Amino acid sequence: MGTQQSRATVDRYVELVASGTAAQILELYAPEAVVEDPIGSEPRRGLEAIRELYAVLEPLQRKAEPGVIRVSGNHAAVSFTMVSEGHGHRMTISPVDIMEFDDKGRILSMRAYWSQDDLQVEPI
Amino acid sequence: MGTQQSRATVDRYVELVASGTAAQILELYAPEAVVEDPIGSEPRRGLEAIRELYAVLEPLQRKAEPGVIRVSGNHAAVSFTMVSEGHGHRMTISPVDIMEFDDKGRILSMRAYWSQDDLQVEPI
Repeated sequence: MGTQQSRATVDRYVELVASGTAAQILELYAPEAVVEDPIGSEPRRGLEAIRELYAVLEPLQRKAEPGVIRVSGNHAAVSFTMVSEGHGHRMTISPVDIMEFDDKGRILSMRAYWSQDDLQVEPI
Repeated sequence: MGTQQSRATVDRYVELVASGTAAQILELYAPEAVVEDPIGSEPRRGLEAIRELYAVLEPLQRKAEPGVIRVSGNHAAVSFTMVSEGHGHRMTISPVDIMEFDDKGRILSMRAYWSQDDLQVEPI
């Protein structure tokens, strides 16, 4: 399992967080994937549980800018800033996501490091 | 276990990576701590095994600059760049470290995300 394949998934993930549907984002995940977002919250196990997380993004106008990306074999850490607009608000969130990949480059686990300090919400 | 206590340990960690002894850095760790540096390598279990990692830094001239820091409860992600000089070489390394803390704010686990791409070595 190569660093290059992991890197491709990370790049595609940040791209789809900005512009993809929930279905497109879920295609990056392995069926047995586990997501903990934010870190310390109840893990979402499997694609149906994970879908809820991205479904809320779908109706929003979004953009995302990658920051630090570190990839080693089937592990990656990526920071990014996502700005979304909808429901009369602009939300800015800047997590560090930690991912592990299977041998097809699909995300096996994702843990998002952020707190309320890394989230701004303002009326527009 | 508070975010504030975790944050204090993270800040102190980056400070000591730049200027501390191995013994000072080890004081930030819980006795049962596990370190995986880089991610995917054999984990170092316990303070004696972890000490080796920091002992090699001691004779070097070092500085470190923190980058992205995300802290939530007893979890943290921190990127930093460390530049060290010694043995006729300058080494620059930029990992993302993922940490979990015990209820005293001591590091229970640290996993360092970096690869050869994030490491530069040049003669001085």
